[in-house]
Amino acid sequence: MKVPAAGLPARVRIHEVGARDGLQNEKTAVPTAVKAEFVHRLAAAGLTTIEATSFVHPKWVPQLADAEQLFPLLSDVRADLPVLVPNERGLDRALALGATRIAVFGSATETFAARNLNRTVAESLAMFEPVVGRARQAGAHVRGYLSMCFGDPWEGPVPVDRVVSVAVDLLGLGCDELSLGDTIGVATPGHVQALLEALNAAGVDTARIGVHFHDTYGQALSNTLAALRHGVTTVDASAGGLGGCPYAKSATGNLATEDLVWMLDGLGIETGVDLAALTATSVWMAERLGRPSPSRTVRALSHKE
Amino acid sequence: MKVPAAGLPARVRIHEVGARDGLQNEKTAVPTAVKAEFVHRLAAAGLTTIEATSFVHPKWVPQLADAEQLFPLLSDVRADLPVLVPNERGLDRALALGATRIAVFGSATETFAARNLNRTVAESLAMFEPVVGRARQAGAHVRGYLSMCFGDPWEGPVPVDRVVSVAVDLLGLGCDELSLGDTIGVATPGHVQALLEALNAAGVDTARIGVHFHDTYGQALSNTLAALRHGVTTVDASAGGLGGCPYAKSATGNLATEDLVWMLDGLGIETGVDLAALTATSVWMAERLGRPSPSRTVRALSHKE
Repeated sequence: MKVPAAGLPARVRIHEVGARDGLQNEKTAVPTAVKAEFVHRLAAAGLTTIEATSFVHPKWVPQLADAEQLFPLLSDVRADLPVLVPNERGLDRALALGATRIAVFGSATETFAARNLNRTVAESLAMFEPVVGRARQAGAHVRGYLSMCFGDPWEGPVPVDRVVSVAVDLLGLGCDELSLGDTIGVATPGHVQALLEALNAAGVDTARIGVHFHDTYGQALSNTLAALRHGVTTVDASAGGLGGCPYAKSATGNLATEDLVWMLDGLGIETGVDLAALTATSVWMAERLGRPSPSRTVRALSHKE
Repeated sequence: MKVPAAGLPARVRIHEVGARDGLQNEKTAVPTAVKAEFVHRLAAAGLTTIEATSFVHPKWVPQLADAEQLFPLLSDVRADLPVLVPNERGLDRALALGATRIAVFGSATETFAARNLNRTVAESLAMFEPVVGRARQAGAHVRGYLSMCFGDPWEGPVPVDRVVSVAVDLLGLGCDELSLGDTIGVATPGHVQALLEALNAAGVDTARIGVHFHDTYGQALSNTLAALRHGVTTVDASAGGLGGCPYAKSATGNLATEDLVWMLDGLGIETGVDLAALTATSVWMAERLGRPSPSRTVRALSHKE
């Protein structure tokens, strides 16, 4: 039943990350043809922004080592297809294939920057500067991921002003939009609201902010609701909750797109997504991966009496 | 990290339903001594309202057939211990054992009333009338559960005015509080808000309303957040997410108390619950039941590196 609530946006753009953020954490090797079909099915289900792959060195993310083979198979997909690029070499590869939307992946904390990027935060921003500049010069849209915006497994809670500082720097490089990541899933709604308010106070327009919540502690959807109340209209999610979890096989990382769509449909917020087609896609993908989707909505809707 | 948000209550009373609503759906036979230890552990973790068992006929709920044996084992528990009673016979049994808080279980829809109570809604209210009246006369506190407040598996979406009508009648019998159940987990936040507003418009004070959300589609916590924003301060939840699900083994029914406490802790809302002790209790119970807790928070916190 559609029952709108006051103070929420009329439309939300879902930034679907399953094919990249989801599959990069899967242990099962997924054939390139299956990935291509996955992206086609996601687009057919109505998703308009589908992060397709990553042009990172295959040594670091072997799951996505087929980016060069995959991307050309998606030329007929009627959706925006951002790709992750870690550095200038990755950007070259992406642009050579005709990518028009790229994303860089930064960290709000020093520890995660050191572990994930082998750099300080300042060094990582310096690395991104020519990537963002050249991408924009080539006419590409640039998204800046900012991970560990709420908590960090080594540093604990992350101060809001620290996140704002790195976010402003990342946008200052020329990023068109920012995706605030709760990488370990610890955030709660007041923290989300406080960070968004602090970003606004620092001059960041809410229209440029997306949110990327993890469901590790079951908090992703209530945090999303808090962000929507603040005016955020870009929400990252992963079809079927793909993406595994650092903790347990059965638990989840990414917010499942289906759980998000269930809430947005109920609130009468337009997404353009056909929930039945999306669920069928996630069930199909779960069969390819040999394990059930962790999405509660997928499980409930796909249950056979 | 504790970051409060404006417009939320300072304190929430959790009505813990795991020992009754949770265990009544378990296929595993749980020994009475284990149930008693479970309730003691829940109280030790800081829960102050623990629904202990049901005095329904053993033919209908064999899992709780030991109510007479269990209840006396809980005399030293420092918490309120409501018990479910289906009718006058159940009330007699409960009062004879010294129960001071009882609950009746009604339905907002005719189909569920017919299937679950073998009566029309009007007939079920007539059956509850002497139960509630006599309970109050005996000085007992009475909770009225109202199930299928948002959707019904046979009837589909349940009109808000229908729910309000039955809710007002149920309170009119003399119930001290009402628990609004989303028995099949389909609600979304706007629907929650609309029902609460309609109840207020019909003269029902929010202080008498509790919410009972199921997590079948992952919506329980965002619905809870919407209810808290409306001023609700009584929230039902089940330790470890006990309670199974009509759809799939791995999916969940009841909102897990731990997932709720994670959110409330983060928002700085007092519950008196020690999350670590509660999680340890749910892990212990999961071992007794031979399957992992479906609570995301329990899984994340109990993961061993």
